[in-house]
Amino acid sequence: MIKIAVLGYGTVGSGAVKVLQTNRESIARRVGEELCVKYVLDLRDFPGDPVEEILVHDYKEILKDPEVRIVVETMGGVNPAYDFSKLALQAGKSVCTSNKELVAQHGVELMQIAKEKNVNYMFEASCGGGIPIIRAMNEALTADVIDEVSGILNGTTNYILTKMTLEGSEFGDALAEAQKNGYAERNPEADIEGYDACRKIAILSSVAYGSHVDFTDVYTEGITKIKAADIRYAAAMGKVIKLLAFSRKDGNAVSARVTPALIGPDDPLYAVNDVFNAVLVHGNMLGDAMFYGSGAGSLPTASAVVADVVACAKNPGRNVAVPGTGETLEIVPFEETESRFFVRVSGNPAERLDGIKALFGEVETVAADGTEDDFGFVTGLIEERVFAEKIAGLDGVLNRIRVM
Amino acid sequence: MIKIAVLGYGTVGSGAVKVLQTNRESIARRVGEELCVKYVLDLRDFPGDPVEEILVHDYKEILKDPEVRIVVETMGGVNPAYDFSKLALQAGKSVCTSNKELVAQHGVELMQIAKEKNVNYMFEASCGGGIPIIRAMNEALTADVIDEVSGILNGTTNYILTKMTLEGSEFGDALAEAQKNGYAERNPEADIEGYDACRKIAILSSVAYGSHVDFTDVYTEGITKIKAADIRYAAAMGKVIKLLAFSRKDGNAVSARVTPALIGPDDPLYAVNDVFNAVLVHGNMLGDAMFYGSGAGSLPTASAVVADVVACAKNPGRNVAVPGTGETLEIVPFEETESRFFVRVSGNPAERLDGIKALFGEVETVAADGTEDDFGFVTGLIEERVFAEKIAGLDGVLNRIRVM
Repeated sequence: MIKIAVLGYGTVGSGAVKVLQTNRESIARRVGEELCVKYVLDLRDFPGDPVEEILVHDYKEILKDPEVRIVVETMGGVNPAYDFSKLALQAGKSVCTSNKELVAQHGVELMQIAKEKNVNYMFEASCGGGIPIIRAMNEALTADVIDEVSGILNGTTNYILTKMTLEGSEFGDALAEAQKNGYAERNPEADIEGYDACRKIAILSSVAYGSHVDFTDVYTEGITKIKAADIRYAAAMGKVIKLLAFSRKDGNAVSARVTPALIGPDDPLYAVNDVFNAVLVHGNMLGDAMFYGSGAGSLPTASAVVADVVACAKNPGRNVAVPGTGETLEIVPFEETESRFFVRVSGNPAERLDGIKALFGEVETVAADGTEDDFGFVTGLIEERVFAEKIAGLDGVLNRIRVM
Repeated sequence: MIKIAVLGYGTVGSGAVKVLQTNRESIARRVGEELCVKYVLDLRDFPGDPVEEILVHDYKEILKDPEVRIVVETMGGVNPAYDFSKLALQAGKSVCTSNKELVAQHGVELMQIAKEKNVNYMFEASCGGGIPIIRAMNEALTADVIDEVSGILNGTTNYILTKMTLEGSEFGDALAEAQKNGYAERNPEADIEGYDACRKIAILSSVAYGSHVDFTDVYTEGITKIKAADIRYAAAMGKVIKLLAFSRKDGNAVSARVTPALIGPDDPLYAVNDVFNAVLVHGNMLGDAMFYGSGAGSLPTASAVVADVVACAKNPGRNVAVPGTGETLEIVPFEETESRFFVRVSGNPAERLDGIKALFGEVETVAADGTEDDFGFVTGLIEERVFAEKIAGLDGVLNRIRVM
């Protein structure tokens, strides 16, 4: 019998307890031993909930109990999750987490401690909810060198953009509906500004390339400036707008960004709608592979945490982390990366196209139904720095969105 | 240094040699030791090919060499692959294969021998080419009880159906084009009659449910009877026609089938086109997860075989197969399963609908452009046996296709 403690009885933590109970038998068969939740840590009380009997308020009780071999950290936020995780690892307990802020900020250190202590620090649930993407990269795509990872990594923004696309609504209304339906938090900043996706693509890139990518190096733009009009133009081009997290490794240089992007039907991410997430991985032998599923939610995310618990339970006293490549990756400054841009400007092509061509060379123009006072154009590949300079010299720019 | 032998220097075998060479360093880092191909077995000679130096024609040379710890079987077909694999396992060598015929027919026995000898029999590449679906089910979705697996498992038929959908062509023309482009074999029977997908869904179901599903129990229908007209009707309903492999576990009963099916845009498989494959898995905690990628091709499939080699190399002397559930699964006779049907009949609704309703109760009728002499209707859920009886009593039936 392997004893577990769950830190935080919120959405994911309570889900983890439920997964471990519901699938007790099949999990025991896979591990070869039963798993049992001995403690749940939370500041709150849960009168009437069966969890009451194993609820503790003081982390020391868990820490000092040598029976607890695996700690599930589903508290969220950096503090006190960081201290709690570190203390658990130092005490020789494995830690499985859904906490992307903590993994993005202190994952390297925590993995190092786990290695020294011959235990594991696992974080499948930190990216893509229930999608088993980290294990896929670490354990399955082992014959490949992965050189690109991209994805739709945030369910809230994908829900909002899907609503805007299907209903023609503006961002504010779609956000309000997402909040009403429980798909966006009251303070939605981390989602809509792209911060959540930023941490996730940094984590995924680190796993993919076997070398740390710092989330503070990832250029990040949210979806708050996307208008219904932009989506109409996208539709006129046969494309949709998604919040795309993207990273590519080219030699020892990595470029990474989170931005809204226009993507077409040839891209497997095109059809990923609502709160679903998907991660597209490119391997040098495999080509493209996509992993799709529920990007959030109590049970899918808990399923991923518990899969980590199973892996820890199957490997007692053995650190199973994939060794790093030892390479130092250079992060390409965002201004030096290249993109194609869709630009929406006021006026009409007859009056303005000469001036635009003088700046950007040949461009494709785009018209959309119900838009008489503006039009769009698409540039060729252009360096971010150069684009920023040129666009500053253009009047009446209503929006610009990168095109995949 | 871990020595490997590759049996069969065809598409996948030569790909495996290439993957092992190209990604030698990253693979060695993951394994903690270098992998090296010591022998390639093939009846043919390859004058001028670097493989010449390690080419052997007699399997005994490989079998008797104790240095060879892992055998890659990429010969295809049941004989002599079955004997060769069995002998290798009995000699204490792990075997990794892309051979779905062999796995579907003798996989249970070969896995049993591997277990007795503390080696491994692995077959990631037998289903879905480079898509890491077997490892996902065995190693990643370990917190879930999987109760449904479906997918587009055959690239040839998906290419043909995609062509027919995009170009309005008839089956024979699309097949000829697939053959011309190297996406269909000269004798395409195994693909177009669904036999290939049948073996794959039997293997995937066995892994998903932890209990053997015999491929001869899987009802199988190919795509040769699909007409351009059927696809026009599907489009009129906002759907596409795919060759769908499907299996569901309900208690101890499993239903499984391979048939053409109409699927709509809400299904993640809807957007899987050309030679791509995808597998949709439903877990009781996770919900739906989809795995998408190249379903065939030399390097993607070889990438999957080599990922198995890596797993074997990391676990010397240790059988890592997931223990079975010990359940005996009852296969539901196909006649007792239920489906909804799209039926295309000659005539027009005004004349025929009363008779159809007398047989099937309320139905939806479907019209499509450019079809004046026939029309379609969609039944409610109906048992296969009952449907077969009723449809036998209806004149002018042009086709019937299941609707998901």
